[in-house]
Amino acid sequence: MANKNMFLWWGSGSAPCWRPMIVLAEKGLWENLPNKQISFSNKEHKGEEILKLNPRGQVPTFKDGNVVVNESGAVCMYLEEKYSDDSNRLFPTKADERAEVYQRMFETTNVQSNISEKLVYYLFRTKKEDIDEKILKEKTDNAREELNRWNTILGDKDYLCGSKFTMADVFFYPILAFLVRCGTKLTNQPALKKYYDRVSERPSVQATWPPHWKESEGQGQLKEL
Amino acid sequence: MANKNMFLWWGSGSAPCWRPMIVLAEKGLWENLPNKQISFSNKEHKGEEILKLNPRGQVPTFKDGNVVVNESGAVCMYLEEKYSDDSNRLFPTKADERAEVYQRMFETTNVQSNISEKLVYYLFRTKKEDIDEKILKEKTDNAREELNRWNTILGDKDYLCGSKFTMADVFFYPILAFLVRCGTKLTNQPALKKYYDRVSERPSVQATWPPHWKESEGQGQLKEL
Repeated sequence: MANKNMFLWWGSGSAPCWRPMIVLAEKGLWENLPNKQISFSNKEHKGEEILKLNPRGQVPTFKDGNVVVNESGAVCMYLEEKYSDDSNRLFPTKADERAEVYQRMFETTNVQSNISEKLVYYLFRTKKEDIDEKILKEKTDNAREELNRWNTILGDKDYLCGSKFTMADVFFYPILAFLVRCGTKLTNQPALKKYYDRVSERPSVQATWPPHWKESEGQGQLKEL
Repeated sequence: MANKNMFLWWGSGSAPCWRPMIVLAEKGLWENLPNKQISFSNKEHKGEEILKLNPRGQVPTFKDGNVVVNESGAVCMYLEEKYSDDSNRLFPTKADERAEVYQRMFETTNVQSNISEKLVYYLFRTKKEDIDEKILKEKTDNAREELNRWNTILGDKDYLCGSKFTMADVFFYPILAFLVRCGTKLTNQPALKKYYDRVSERPSVQATWPPHWKESEGQGQLKEL
């Protein structure tokens, strides 16, 4: 097996972990991959084993023989470049078409920042009685605008960059799935809703679905989105 | 000229703009590039001309014939893949070595978040009398730790990934230069200081140096770093 010298440390529900896991599954490398699921609440990502390879003490931490690579996007690019064949490439071959995939990959940081960081973490970290309705409305409007933007980008395409599943979807989908778990039904973003349902059924996504998401429901913070 | 169908909208001192400008210069495409420097204070990035190509109303906004690509990292990757030759490649050719370049490229988001966002913008946006010394110390310690981390990564290498200037340096250097402009002398990070001096002299960096940085000094917020 091409994956026998690999090792992945990962945490359940972390978008940065899920991305390379999807790529591994797309390349047929997920099954029987040597790996360890760590517990965030027990701070296992700050354990010696991980710190030795990844001084930031974060997951994913990934090695493949002597190659150690830990930044989520970097692991994805490494796997893509080293283990693709014509049946499972996540990039088109022409530079002009690849540009669009890169555009959407890097653009996902806006979803992270405008929705997860500014709105979801505000709701996670603020006591109910301390929530300022005006601030909450501003953050919610901003988050909704971000989601609408992706609804427009998607239009009637099957995937973010057209008819094929690409690295752009690998970067974007795990954050979208997190937002859905937080309660949004995507009622106002019908293209995104169809996209969410389509990608959720993908074998690579099913095989790597966050284990703790199967066991319990999310807290519904984003019902209003 | 290969750049006659290109157009770049950019703003002075923005790291996301500076990165593709350095790549353009590395590829010999900066000279005579059709371009427009926009004024952030006049909100020209929210003007119709840019919004037509870039609904987020941000710079860089870049086109090359029919290809429109706006995310800084995506512009860099597009230029690298379309316009490299053996004399100016910003990536090694082997996947194992490319992994390290990707690792450092993506890792620069930590500098942005741990230093620029958490510390510099706190100092920019908080009135002097409202600054909480305990919070400031925490943020400063955290920022210093981040800077020290890069000092260690660099060690005695000339560039982040070895003896060659790579895309990792393109991503990292503009943020480092911003921190230096904000006042840090890198006294506690001697490897970074040498690196800063070395890269600052590079012709592609000199040719694209932020115009307004030549005219006025920074405000020295980071003297304590």
